[in-house]
Amino acid sequence: MEEFKLTTYEQLQEDTDRLLETAEKVGANTWQERVKNQTPHCKFGENGVCCRICTMGPCRITPKAPRGICGCDAHGIVGRNFLRFTAGGSATHSDHGREICHTLHIASPDGDYKVKDEAKLRRLAPVFDIDPEGKETYELAHEVALAALEEYGKPFGYQKMTKRATKERQETWLREGILPRAIDREVSTAMHMTHMGNSSLPEALIRQALRNGLSDGWGGSMMGTELSDVLFGTPKEIETEADLGVIKEDEVNICVHGHDPSLSEMIVEYAENPELLALAKEKGANGINIVGVCCTSNEVTMRHGIPMAGNFLSQENVVLTGAMEAIVVDVQCIFPALGPLSKCFHTKFITTSDICRMPDSEFIHMDPTKAGQIAYDIVKMAVENFANRNKDLVYIPQHKQKAYVGYSCEEIIHKLDGVTNSQVDPTGTYRPLAQVVTSGVIRGAVALVGCNNPKVRHDYAHVELMKKLIANDIILVLSGCSAQAAAKAGLLDKRAKELCGDGLKRVCELVDIPPALHMGSCVDISRMMLLVCDLANELGIDTPQLPVVGCAPEYMSEKAVSIGNYVVSTGIDTFLGVQPYVAGSSECTELLTNGIGDWVGATYYVESDIEKLGDMMIERIEEKRKALGI
Amino acid sequence: MEEFKLTTYEQLQEDTDRLLETAEKVGANTWQERVKNQTPHCKFGENGVCCRICTMGPCRITPKAPRGICGCDAHGIVGRNFLRFTAGGSATHSDHGREICHTLHIASPDGDYKVKDEAKLRRLAPVFDIDPEGKETYELAHEVALAALEEYGKPFGYQKMTKRATKERQETWLREGILPRAIDREVSTAMHMTHMGNSSLPEALIRQALRNGLSDGWGGSMMGTELSDVLFGTPKEIETEADLGVIKEDEVNICVHGHDPSLSEMIVEYAENPELLALAKEKGANGINIVGVCCTSNEVTMRHGIPMAGNFLSQENVVLTGAMEAIVVDVQCIFPALGPLSKCFHTKFITTSDICRMPDSEFIHMDPTKAGQIAYDIVKMAVENFANRNKDLVYIPQHKQKAYVGYSCEEIIHKLDGVTNSQVDPTGTYRPLAQVVTSGVIRGAVALVGCNNPKVRHDYAHVELMKKLIANDIILVLSGCSAQAAAKAGLLDKRAKELCGDGLKRVCELVDIPPALHMGSCVDISRMMLLVCDLANELGIDTPQLPVVGCAPEYMSEKAVSIGNYVVSTGIDTFLGVQPYVAGSSECTELLTNGIGDWVGATYYVESDIEKLGDMMIERIEEKRKALGI
Repeated sequence: MEEFKLTTYEQLQEDTDRLLETAEKVGANTWQERVKNQTPHCKFGENGVCCRICTMGPCRITPKAPRGICGCDAHGIVGRNFLRFTAGGSATHSDHGREICHTLHIASPDGDYKVKDEAKLRRLAPVFDIDPEGKETYELAHEVALAALEEYGKPFGYQKMTKRATKERQETWLREGILPRAIDREVSTAMHMTHMGNSSLPEALIRQALRNGLSDGWGGSMMGTELSDVLFGTPKEIETEADLGVIKEDEVNICVHGHDPSLSEMIVEYAENPELLALAKEKGANGINIVGVCCTSNEVTMRHGIPMAGNFLSQENVVLTGAMEAIVVDVQCIFPALGPLSKCFHTKFITTSDICRMPDSEFIHMDPTKAGQIAYDIVKMAVENFANRNKDLVYIPQHKQKAYVGYSCEEIIHKLDGVTNSQVDPTGTYRPLAQVVTSGVIRGAVALVGCNNPKVRHDYAHVELMKKLIANDIILVLSGCSAQAAAKAGLLDKRAKELCGDGLKRVCELVDIPPALHMGSCVDISRMMLLVCDLANELGIDTPQLPVVGCAPEYMSEKAVSIGNYVVSTGIDTFLGVQPYVAGSSECTELLTNGIGDWVGATYYVESDIEKLGDMMIERIEEKRKALGI
Repeated sequence: MEEFKLTTYEQLQEDTDRLLETAEKVGANTWQERVKNQTPHCKFGENGVCCRICTMGPCRITPKAPRGICGCDAHGIVGRNFLRFTAGGSATHSDHGREICHTLHIASPDGDYKVKDEAKLRRLAPVFDIDPEGKETYELAHEVALAALEEYGKPFGYQKMTKRATKERQETWLREGILPRAIDREVSTAMHMTHMGNSSLPEALIRQALRNGLSDGWGGSMMGTELSDVLFGTPKEIETEADLGVIKEDEVNICVHGHDPSLSEMIVEYAENPELLALAKEKGANGINIVGVCCTSNEVTMRHGIPMAGNFLSQENVVLTGAMEAIVVDVQCIFPALGPLSKCFHTKFITTSDICRMPDSEFIHMDPTKAGQIAYDIVKMAVENFANRNKDLVYIPQHKQKAYVGYSCEEIIHKLDGVTNSQVDPTGTYRPLAQVVTSGVIRGAVALVGCNNPKVRHDYAHVELMKKLIANDIILVLSGCSAQAAAKAGLLDKRAKELCGDGLKRVCELVDIPPALHMGSCVDISRMMLLVCDLANELGIDTPQLPVVGCAPEYMSEKAVSIGNYVVSTGIDTFLGVQPYVAGSSECTELLTNGIGDWVGATYYVESDIEKLGDMMIERIEEKRKALGI
């Protein structure tokens, strides 16, 4: 067996540098260059004190101009911008969830989309006040899908999924006026409140930001996750690989990118189509190799072990290998740069969603009722494009790491069952996890999530924090680009237990897991919310008491802020490594980093020094342990 | 009878200058001063090429930096900003409409809110696929209200109100992919499309901007208008007055401000409460005088003849008179400046909506189930505050003009019936209007709407355009701040016929109307959409053929852009006097001012020279006439 070693930043940097040489050769523009051109950033924007909400302005707050033309001060402007940022993220996640609901609504036993986890469907039905008893699978699926769709726009009532939180959370949200109503309504409310001449009171704006976040995490995202499991199967532990080395020189390479797994599920299926494989052979390729970036990658790796070529800031590298026949995107986090970039190569840049229309792409409208045919056509198009590859431009970096992924809540419980003495303790619970946390074998847990951001060296914050935390016996749950950073580094290899403190190492050995558990895509942070609530229930406490924190050290998107808002609202302190655009308001900053603690029992912490950020999280976990007397 | 004269800008300026002296005396900050501090504006923002949609930036497009960090170019950034601007407006109007639906849903024969126009309720029911036959009034009202609420979030189908447009419009919207679905969904779709890594194709972004506008104009706004009529009565011609001279030195003055009439309807009612009038007497006041600014004012003037103290840029003046006991606001276009400003006087600044929370205000939560009691409490609070008025600070400018208002579609038809020979022609139609347009007695119509904006001298563009257009035999329909500009100037006085060309003058005399018809608040632009569609049907043509254009010469809010989008989508060319934030993209500018014509048969025209803008409108109307051969 080969010696286990993490991939170093230097190695990743060498790979990227070599690909940037190709970029220069073909005259392609890259994010590294664009970052230089866009730096320094506008300070008004960074501080959140620029307002473009009406055409009287734009207005900018300075000591000499402390109010905008309407009279709004820095606190109101920052608060409004923060709320709109949240609304963008919440709408985005939730709309992804909506598409999944629509897909479930057309699922049929003989169609492209089937119900793959019927047991989960039946477990979920009562959450929507539907009795599954005696109902045929697809009848039930359609009923659940419709009920889920109604969560987006029902005129009355609160999000049904919130009933799955701890009793204390539900009471907290109701008391604080942040229990979310219809998902889209919370977006519209946010837009209305921030329209010219409406709310300028930071408290009101930030409360709505929390509510709008909750409508995402305990609404749209959670439905996206749970109904994806029903449709595509609930993830189970599976082995795979990560980093650009998963791209194969002798095969047709197709990269799936984006967030919604509906099409990529089909592409994965059709990559094994004998007719297309034969065509690939005919074209001189030894097979059809599907790889992924961003969360579409996470979705198909969690369920099928499809390898992860990289994360957000790797997306251009994938094309720069010169060996990518097609990059097929659905929604979110797609660089518009992929359009002009792919034109420098033979790569087909295929956009598929009405939500994500880009110049310089081939648009193939993803109609879910014809998904199989569309996937077939796309795979075929990629196969036929193999012959157009310019071999002189091909350079595939060879680094890759083994990774274990697929840790849904159900799978975590399944793994824990393996170490439960079923003669003494109940199976199917988090009790063993609760026990090792209580006993101190594990000190606590950190949810490491979120994006890449060029303001931080690519993956550096993710990986450094992970190494530090696991060395301190803190177990990690991961999602999104953070999970892929871990995978590329080697931290999802079970052998990474060697980097852990003694307690966590022992747990990894006994349970047979890596110290960092890949729980899925960004919408799957909803899995983590269920986990913390169930763990709190197991311990007979509420979530803010748990020695658990969340961290998004390299976040960049509005979705991340929406996530942050539902994570803190769920009682979990959240640590950010990138400044949100709020520094221009002392009142908003105070509320987010302190005041909201009185409402929901958790707050934000912001620190761009990654070493300090890690220390702060460990300290916070130890404070929570002390308060619990454990 | 006093000689009829328009109020001049010089007179208005003198009044304002005198009030600004008071401002200086009390140390109050005014918009005039803030405009100076905020000028010049940021060029990146004005051109729409600043992107703050993720935290990798902010990014700004320059010749040296033609793409943001993600690779989005100026066209994508401008398109996204334009779509988000629309989404803000659409959400805002529609959320106002939603509140009206909720109010109708709790209407009861013995409650604060009743059904005042049952006939209209019964006419509207079939639009929502409800058969009114044999249903008790409130049973039907609640059923319609629920159906209307479902238009906000139904998982399938299009806006039901769109069936009221011409057949050609409905076909156009379907063909172009802009027939609006659930109202809130269109907002969420807009937010999703503009999230980092989604659409950057101008065509896609602008198409969604049109669809999101249509979900406002033919969805949220139209329901707001129509169900307000059901609840509060459909406006009929009524006489009133306008300008600061309507404030009374010897009475308790209460200014209602905002957009949603639910609370102001109650305040108007309680201003006549004998107990409160007695209390006013006791406090030394000769009565209780309700005045208004912005669209709440338009709502209560249309239905009760409540005088209009002013429009958007008059709101600080109202307080600066020193004679305002309370300024009671609901939602939208409220200057946050009113908080600190009112603190310089005895004036109570009362916020009432969760949507509009402001510092330095007294917040009295408007619970519609207790609206009467709340209105009573507010009026009482104002009455009791009369004694606190500092007489030394009181200066009420004396200018005011007589105005006729209340021209709902129903009332316009009613007026037209007055000149119909019912022996020959049908009554209850726009036929007489169609006839005078066809014959050329009237050359066409302009819908003059929208806000004030300090980029234009207060009311100057509105009033100058009006004078020019009526002199050219073009009849005007007005709403919002434009209608109030007209009212203050004197153009809603029937004697303003003297300023018209001979044709329009004759029509005004015969029909007994002013040349500019106040059709209501900004949501009531939906009335104009019904009018143009019905007029087109009357003439057997589609809307783009009508010699009718829309114009927002001083617009400032996101709502105005949402309106613009549904007006052009309804086939009516729209003329803007203030640059939207799109100049940084030639592609977006081309689409908006030309390309969308191929989709919907109408486009935008932008011209800040008001003289030219008027000429352009007249020219366009004459082109349309020529094309029709009339």
